[in-house]
Amino acid sequence: MKIAILGTGVVGRAQALRLSGLGHNVVIGTQDVHKTIANTDKDYMGNPPMSEFLRANPNLKLGTLAEAAALGDLIINCLRGDRSVNALKALAKEVSGKILIDVSNPLDFSHGMPASLTVCNTNSLGEQIQAVLPNTKVVKAFNAVNAAIQVDPTSLAGGDHDLYICGNDAEAKAKVEQIARSYGWKNIIDLGDISNSRGVEMLLPMWMRLMGALKTPIFNFKVVK
Amino acid sequence: MKIAILGTGVVGRAQALRLSGLGHNVVIGTQDVHKTIANTDKDYMGNPPMSEFLRANPNLKLGTLAEAAALGDLIINCLRGDRSVNALKALAKEVSGKILIDVSNPLDFSHGMPASLTVCNTNSLGEQIQAVLPNTKVVKAFNAVNAAIQVDPTSLAGGDHDLYICGNDAEAKAKVEQIARSYGWKNIIDLGDISNSRGVEMLLPMWMRLMGALKTPIFNFKVVK
Repeated sequence: MKIAILGTGVVGRAQALRLSGLGHNVVIGTQDVHKTIANTDKDYMGNPPMSEFLRANPNLKLGTLAEAAALGDLIINCLRGDRSVNALKALAKEVSGKILIDVSNPLDFSHGMPASLTVCNTNSLGEQIQAVLPNTKVVKAFNAVNAAIQVDPTSLAGGDHDLYICGNDAEAKAKVEQIARSYGWKNIIDLGDISNSRGVEMLLPMWMRLMGALKTPIFNFKVVK
Repeated sequence: MKIAILGTGVVGRAQALRLSGLGHNVVIGTQDVHKTIANTDKDYMGNPPMSEFLRANPNLKLGTLAEAAALGDLIINCLRGDRSVNALKALAKEVSGKILIDVSNPLDFSHGMPASLTVCNTNSLGEQIQAVLPNTKVVKAFNAVNAAIQVDPTSLAGGDHDLYICGNDAEAKAKVEQIARSYGWKNIIDLGDISNSRGVEMLLPMWMRLMGALKTPIFNFKVVK
């Protein structure tokens, strides 16, 4: 399947590598290809520059956001939350009629850690994205899970923890579930329509506090019932 | 120990019964004793009126909020979230120097279910309560768990799920942990100071959505790590 990953950060790279490894045709989209390639610095988390990442993974292609979105039959939004709505609005034509998995979180780091949210409670980033892309089937998924666990859930406790998804289109959610199962996800909880993004995005303030208390990002929630 | 439960709802009753069963001296506080006793209707969830509950449990005493708060060496706030700050502010003298466990949630049901929150993200009910009770040691606990599970965690999956607590005073948190362990809690995660109420209160939008998806309130989160 042709899949576009929007965003070159930790999440985008993890998704791209995993999908490529599963045999998909992956193109990564970035705001400014020249700038992304020209950058030779590690990021603040110590990850290698994108040029080095691409050299190590020659199956992965890089293009502009619009090029990637146009090529992909399915789109995964791994852009920063505060940039997602505007960036995706500009891609409305390229993503029209397609499934878009929204992995982003509306995090506001301007007041330090733990970050607050730029939107929550009576709205959500997932809903905002669906609102600017009325012809796209937006499915919120993976956002409340560390990147490494997103794409390899069995690396944590054999996969006995939960993935939450929501979206307005049942077929789109079934497709996203299929991809998630190909990653190894076993417990997938469908919360309903895209307004349930409020619930999964509001996990982030707790997620960040748990990361602080547990001193690791390698954990996930499981609903015990 | 002399313990005051503020609130006569499902949560207050569950906490009162459990603590009484554990040998504590429990007094329940209500806004208007006469009105509470005079009411002969079941509540909207089908629970018996308070008079019937008290007849069935003669060890439990009922008083005004101020009487209960004055008698208790430890206070548990089980009032409705939207009434808690004003009600507790009026009890500042009675709860001064004491530990107050805040179980309430800032739920706003005015737009239907799932409820939104009246405060979140950059503030929380736990913090608001600590702010109006500067001489009280507020510990947020139990709020993200169904009442029955709060006081009997081993009834669910043998107790293999989490209780999150936070507060500014280490000794107060140790005391609350001790009570929680007497209920059967095994996994207690201390998130830090009272500002972490933001995290545990923001679990509620997800909790309500999970209750809808799972069609039961009998579940709890476990952090898998």
